[in-house]
Amino acid sequence: MISDKMTAFVQGSSVIRAMFEEGKNMAKKYGQENVYDFSLGNPNVPAPASVNKAIKDIIDEEDSVFVHGYMSNSGYEDVRASIAASLNKRFGTGFAENNIIMTVGAAGGLNVILKTLLNPEDEVITFAPYFGEYRSYVGNYDGKLVVVSPDTDTFQPKFDEFEQKITAKTRAVIMNNPNNPTGVVYSEETLKKLAVIMEKKQKEYGTDIYLISDEPYRELVYDGVTVPYPTKYYKNTIVGYSYSKSLSLPGERIGYLVIPSEVSDYENVSAAANVATRILGFVNAPSLMQRVVGRCVDAEVNIEPYNRNRELLYNSLKEYGYECVKPQGAFYLFVKSPSEDETEFVNAAKKHHILVVPGTSFACPGYVRIAYCVAYDTIKNSLPGFKELAQEFGL
Amino acid sequence: MISDKMTAFVQGSSVIRAMFEEGKNMAKKYGQENVYDFSLGNPNVPAPASVNKAIKDIIDEEDSVFVHGYMSNSGYEDVRASIAASLNKRFGTGFAENNIIMTVGAAGGLNVILKTLLNPEDEVITFAPYFGEYRSYVGNYDGKLVVVSPDTDTFQPKFDEFEQKITAKTRAVIMNNPNNPTGVVYSEETLKKLAVIMEKKQKEYGTDIYLISDEPYRELVYDGVTVPYPTKYYKNTIVGYSYSKSLSLPGERIGYLVIPSEVSDYENVSAAANVATRILGFVNAPSLMQRVVGRCVDAEVNIEPYNRNRELLYNSLKEYGYECVKPQGAFYLFVKSPSEDETEFVNAAKKHHILVVPGTSFACPGYVRIAYCVAYDTIKNSLPGFKELAQEFGL
Repeated sequence: MISDKMTAFVQGSSVIRAMFEEGKNMAKKYGQENVYDFSLGNPNVPAPASVNKAIKDIIDEEDSVFVHGYMSNSGYEDVRASIAASLNKRFGTGFAENNIIMTVGAAGGLNVILKTLLNPEDEVITFAPYFGEYRSYVGNYDGKLVVVSPDTDTFQPKFDEFEQKITAKTRAVIMNNPNNPTGVVYSEETLKKLAVIMEKKQKEYGTDIYLISDEPYRELVYDGVTVPYPTKYYKNTIVGYSYSKSLSLPGERIGYLVIPSEVSDYENVSAAANVATRILGFVNAPSLMQRVVGRCVDAEVNIEPYNRNRELLYNSLKEYGYECVKPQGAFYLFVKSPSEDETEFVNAAKKHHILVVPGTSFACPGYVRIAYCVAYDTIKNSLPGFKELAQEFGL
Repeated sequence: MISDKMTAFVQGSSVIRAMFEEGKNMAKKYGQENVYDFSLGNPNVPAPASVNKAIKDIIDEEDSVFVHGYMSNSGYEDVRASIAASLNKRFGTGFAENNIIMTVGAAGGLNVILKTLLNPEDEVITFAPYFGEYRSYVGNYDGKLVVVSPDTDTFQPKFDEFEQKITAKTRAVIMNNPNNPTGVVYSEETLKKLAVIMEKKQKEYGTDIYLISDEPYRELVYDGVTVPYPTKYYKNTIVGYSYSKSLSLPGERIGYLVIPSEVSDYENVSAAANVATRILGFVNAPSLMQRVVGRCVDAEVNIEPYNRNRELLYNSLKEYGYECVKPQGAFYLFVKSPSEDETEFVNAAKKHHILVVPGTSFACPGYVRIAYCVAYDTIKNSLPGFKELAQEFGL
């Protein structure tokens, strides 16, 4: 007999994960090369050589008890200092080691910060389309996810609706920049507008509204676009980062939270996040990987394969008549489904061995997410299928 | 502003962790060799050579995208199958890959299984002295920890009190074998007695009472003692394991849950644990370390240094007049404080640069925990201090 909350989950489960498992089964059945699995954001670009070199060097050079042993729950001080210095160099921020907490991926970091901040019934706002797990994470702490509806022309935030949805119970806002599933990047102007609204509401209600910027795709940007560093626009900003996508280490579970000294109640937020790391069962981020990212803090992120994929897939789908806002970040295309109910298109695609994720999973029905972090040839070989589907659906 | 639950935590925090930080500061001040830090269970025996070899071999031999990438939330199928086969060979069990879920240490596994099982107000029984984090983990899911008082003569479970404390709301029992902080090992006879009681109560209330056996110290046993495999005595047993102590990998966060097919509602428990792994932010256990333990599943655990430490420390303290139940497992001595309030002794010990943890942290006041997973010389050099303390306290 399982808990009531989990009963609901077992029935609902994860569409993305179900697709991933389905893709593996299809690959077993038809052969890997005949399945075009665009469902899971699992980077196909290997980790940089410097990462694997770092692993081996650390094993050879650093003391085993140190490398594999416990350390402060927030992580090795030297690693945190290196990360802070790197951020300061890149973005002109003023962080120190005490502003960084190493986390078990971004997902671990989000759980830590939400445990730190949320009382039951507290509201957390996010912008559709959004990564469906936000709902689960907020639900873990009995918070209430409040969703701003999607602007399907641009997938930028709807500022008026955002302002209206902030209440006295709004404890946090989760922003994902660059965005999963749309790949859009919020500009500096957008961040400034959001900040003005949140400052206004903080004053109006006499509350603290923390902006949680979830940014595992920060370095995956194209067309010369850069992602502004959000702490510079709004004092109560906490950043969640992960090396899953930038260094292709999603399985290793390594990321960090940035809790700037300027945030309201910094001492308690920082202390609580440290404790939450321990009692939620993370205890600390994996030790060897902390040492690795400490050494690889300025590693080059190779985005060229993703960009090449983006161009091929986007241009081809546009040619076939699909509608899509061209993404400038991450590795997803969010494409308008040619069928009103995207389930129809998703199922038809499966017959062509194409796996995509329904937009409903991201609170944006009528769309599908296509993850292009796959081999170039996978995209190339899937194109005839996408073309046939376009014709089947009368595009 | 932080959540109410976390406000309480930040005020209370962790005595063990506070000691650890205090030990580090003392070491900076007085020199590492002049501090006798017995506070944290951080193994001083290095990981076996086979572990570091495995890390390097995996980096050289296995595909980077596979080693560092996402896999099923429950972990790599081949690693789980290897673990199941190893358990079957060692203990005559009948597990398969589907009975194993890889976890972020034992702490991660406990959080996963408690999230899976507990509704708010459900009761979880444990036996004092117990690892204080159990209270935090149960509290994460709004469960209620019910504690069986300690039998300070033997530190074995008090069966009558256990039976009395089981109610219709008892969802789980957490057993730690070998035990932290006492180091005692529960015998086969003890497991059978506990099973009889739980079976009786399941029938009486018409409920499922899951026994969660938390066993990171399984291989750390002395005097020819073995730890019986608990699933063989009680159908509704779930095992939580970690390689933190056996392979000296506490920082790496790698362990597993065993959910036998025989447990009540196996399909839902297993499915829910898989989902909980994901939504709690673990997503999966660290990938490289999964591959490592897959290769090192039969690695020898070197307990000789711990045994040597145990003998030296136990015999010396007994000689000085301290009282202690001789432990047969783990790497802790649980020693009766010569002062009624152990805080007095703990503070006096600090003046001798000796750091021990008050028994109150384990719900057993009047005792202190001494972790002997330290260098032999650390123990040797601390003995004059322990002797002086014994004299100061009139032993």
